Amino acid sequence: MPTDTAILELDAAIAQRAIAQLADLSPLVHCITNTVVQNFTANLLLAAGAIPAMIIDPSECQEFAQVADGLLLNVGTLYHEHCATYYHAAENANRFSKPWVLDPVAVGGLTLRTEFCRKLLSLNPSVIRGNASEISVLAGETTGGRGPETQLSADQALDAARQLAMTIEGIVVVTGEVDLITDGLRTLKVSGGSILATRVTGAGCALSALCAAFASLEGDRLGNVASACWMLSRAAELAMQQAAGPGTFALHLLDGLAQLQEVP
Amino acid sequence: MPTDTAILELDAAIAQRAIAQLADLSPLVHCITNTVVQNFTANLLLAAGAIPAMIIDPSECQEFAQVADGLLLNVGTLYHEHCATYYHAAENANRFSKPWVLDPVAVGGLTLRTEFCRKLLSLNPSVIRGNASEISVLAGETTGGRGPETQLSADQALDAARQLAMTIEGIVVVTGEVDLITDGLRTLKVSGGSILATRVTGAGCALSALCAAFASLEGDRLGNVASACWMLSRAAELAMQQAAGPGTFALHLLDGLAQLQEVP
Amino acid sequence: MPTDTAILELDAAIAQRAIAQLADLSPLVHCITNTVVQNFTANLLLAAGAIPAMIIDPSECQEFAQVADGLLLNVGTLYHEHCATYYHAAENANRFSKPWVLDPVAVGGLTLRTEFCRKLLSLNPSVIRGNASEISVLAGETTGGRGPETQLSADQALDAARQLAMTIEGIVVVTGEVDLITDGLRTLKVSGGSILATRVTGAGCALSALCAAFASLEGDRLGNVASACWMLSRAAELAMQQAAGPGTFALHLLDGLAQLQEVP
Repeated sequence: MPTDTAILELDAAIAQRAIAQLADLSPLVHCITNTVVQNFTANLLLAAGAIPAMIIDPSECQEFAQVADGLLLNVGTLYHEHCATYYHAAENANRFSKPWVLDPVAVGGLTLRTEFCRKLLSLNPSVIRGNASEISVLAGETTGGRGPETQLSADQALDAARQLAMTIEGIVVVTGEVDLITDGLRTLKVSGGSILATRVTGAGCALSALCAAFASLEGDRLGNVASACWMLSRAAELAMQQAAGPGTFALHLLDGLAQLQEVP
Repeated sequence: MPTDTAILELDAAIAQRAIAQLADLSPLVHCITNTVVQNFTANLLLAAGAIPAMIIDPSECQEFAQVADGLLLNVGTLYHEHCATYYHAAENANRFSKPWVLDPVAVGGLTLRTEFCRKLLSLNPSVIRGNASEISVLAGETTGGRGPETQLSADQALDAARQLAMTIEGIVVVTGEVDLITDGLRTLKVSGGSILATRVTGAGCALSALCAAFASLEGDRLGNVASACWMLSRAAELAMQQAAGPGTFALHLLDGLAQLQEVP
Repeated sequence: MPTDTAILELDAAIAQRAIAQLADLSPLVHCITNTVVQNFTANLLLAAGAIPAMIIDPSECQEFAQVADGLLLNVGTLYHEHCATYYHAAENANRFSKPWVLDPVAVGGLTLRTEFCRKLLSLNPSVIRGNASEISVLAGETTGGRGPETQLSADQALDAARQLAMTIEGIVVVTGEVDLITDGLRTLKVSGGSILATRVTGAGCALSALCAAFASLEGDRLGNVASACWMLSRAAELAMQQAAGPGTFALHLLDGLAQLQEVP
C-alpha cells in the first residue's frame, strides 16, 4: 500500500482559512459525550465559533441527525444501556452524510468500550481522535494502558494510525506532544501547544468535538481536521502566557480560542 | 384582554432589596437540570447567595419537595425515562406551594421535549424562562430554531410571552439583548448585560435556576423574578471589565454575583 | 473505649512527604461520583498529581477495581438503579485491598441515600469524609440538615466521628472551619483554608477524591489522609491571595494544588 512518508507541518494559512470558515458557518455539533467533560466541551466549541448541542434521548438523537452539521461520539462514561443510542446516532449521521468523530477514551483494558468501539469501526467514522495508546489498540496492535493516559508518543502510533485510517476510509488523529493527522496516504503534523493541556480534564475530548466541527467544513477534510489541532495548539500557547497553573490555563485556553476566531 | 402596554425598566432599588432578601434567606433550590450545566448552575446559585441541590432519584425528589424553597426543571438533556420524575416534581412543588420554573431548552424541533414541555404547561409553572424562539414555540406561534440559539429578539416574542403568561397564570421571562419579564398584564424590562454571556454554555440555564431562587422570596413575584435578571446583567457588566474572553468571563461573572450580594 | 483525647495539628513535614509521594506514584483514582462535580473532581486530582478515572458501567467498574489504586463513592446524585454498581465497586475494592472512600452527601433527610450509606458501612469504607451533620447522621446521632450544608462545627461531631471510625475500623474525616481526621484512637487536626471554599460547589466532594488518592500511599494512613486536607487548605490559602470571588477562587485553587505538588 503506497504511502507518502513525508510528514508536513500544517500550513498556518490553511488553518486560518478553516478557522474563518468555521466562524462564518457556526456549525452545529451534536455531542454524545461523557458527563465529565460536557461543560468544557460546550464552552470550547462556543469559544471556537461552533454551536454545541448535547442531546441524549434516542428519539431526539434520531431527529437531530438531520439538523446537526457533525456528530461526536465519546465513550468516556459509556453505559451499556446507551450503546444503542450511540450506534444509531452514527448510522443516522452516515445516512444524512454528516461527518462523525469517534473518541475511543481509554479503550484497551475495559471490555465494554473496547468491543463497542471496534463495532463502531464498521460504520466508518469520518474521524477517530485518540492518544497513541488508544489508536494502537483500535488498530489491533496493543491492549492499552491502565487508564486515560498514554505511555506512547504519537510517532510510535503512526503506522497504526495509517492502517486504521485505511480501514475506516477516514481520518485518524493521534494527539500528543506533536499531533499527527493522517488519512493513510497523506499525513500532516501540528507541533507546539502546551504540556498544561494534559493537566486539564477533557482537553482531548473537547478537541474531538472541535474535529467534528472542522470536519463539517467545505474543502480538504484532512487539512480542516488538522486545523482543529492547530487552533487548539495556538490557543494553548496563548494561554500559557497568562496562566499560573492548570486551573487558570483552562479558562485562558477558551479565551485564546475566541481570540483566534475573531482576529482575521 | 386589557394589558398595560407600557414596559418599565426594573427599578434598581427593587432589585437591590430582592438581592438583600435572597442573601438573608439563602433559599434552597432543587435543580433537575441538564448534565452540561449542573456545575455552573450550582456555582452561580452559591455565588448569588442561594443554596443548590441537584437530586435526581424519583423517591428523593418527592421527599425533597417539602424541604426545597423552589424548583427548576430544565429539559436540556431530557431522557424519556426521566420525564415522570420531572412531572412528579412539578406536581409536588404545586402541592407544597413552592414556586417552580420551567426552562424549555431548544423546544420546537425536538418532539420529546416539545410535547413534554407542552404537557407541563397544564401544571402551571410559576415561571417560564426561555429565549424568544423557545417562548414563541410554547405559545404555539412558531416551530422553533435549529438548536439552542435563537434568531428572534425578545421584543418579537413579547406578545407570545404575554399570552403564555396568561395561559399558565404565571410569569414568562424572555431573555435576549434586553430581558422582558411579564405576567401578561404588567411587563418589566432589564437592559444591559454582556454579549459574552451568549458564549458561556448554561448562562441562560443558570439564570432559570436563579429565577427559582428569587421566585421564592416574599413580595411582588414579578419584581423579584426581574431582579434575578437584573442581578445577572449587572454581574455580567462587572465581569466584562475583567474578562479577556468567554473563559475568564464565566468566572468573573460568578465573582460579580458574589460582589453584588455582599455590597448593601 | 480508650481514646487519646489530645488532638494534634498535622505536622507540615508529614504532609509534604505525602504530597511528594503522591506526585511520584500518580495514583489512579476511580471516582463514582455525582454528575455535578465530576469535572471539578477530575481537574482537582490532576492538579494535585493523581489520575482520575470516571467509569460508571457495572461491568467496567468490576474490571477497573484491579487497576485503580483507590475508589471514591459519592452519593450526591444517587439514582436507585445505580446502587448495585456502587455496592459491587466497594466489594471489589475490598477484594483487591484497594482503599475506598465514602462521601455521604446530604445523608439524613433523604431516605434512599441514608439507608444506602448505612448499608455501605457494613463493607467497612477505608475513609468516610463528610461535614459534621453528615458524620453525625451516619453515627446515628442526628437526622441531618435540610440540604448539603451543615449547621454543626467539626468539633461538635468529634465524638460521633470517633465512634464511627471504630465501627468501620477505618478513618473518618470531618471537614469544616477546622478539619478533624480520626481513626477512633488518634485524631489529627488541619486548620486554615478559606471560607471561599464553601462557595465552590464540590470542594468537599473533590477533597473526598483526594482522600482516596492519599489513602493509597505507603505509610501511616491517618497521616496520609490528613495530608489531603492539609494540601487543600494550603492551596485554598494560596488561592485566597489571588481570587476576587468564588469564581476565580476555584481556578486559583487548582493552580495552588499544582504549585504545592511541584515545589519540593
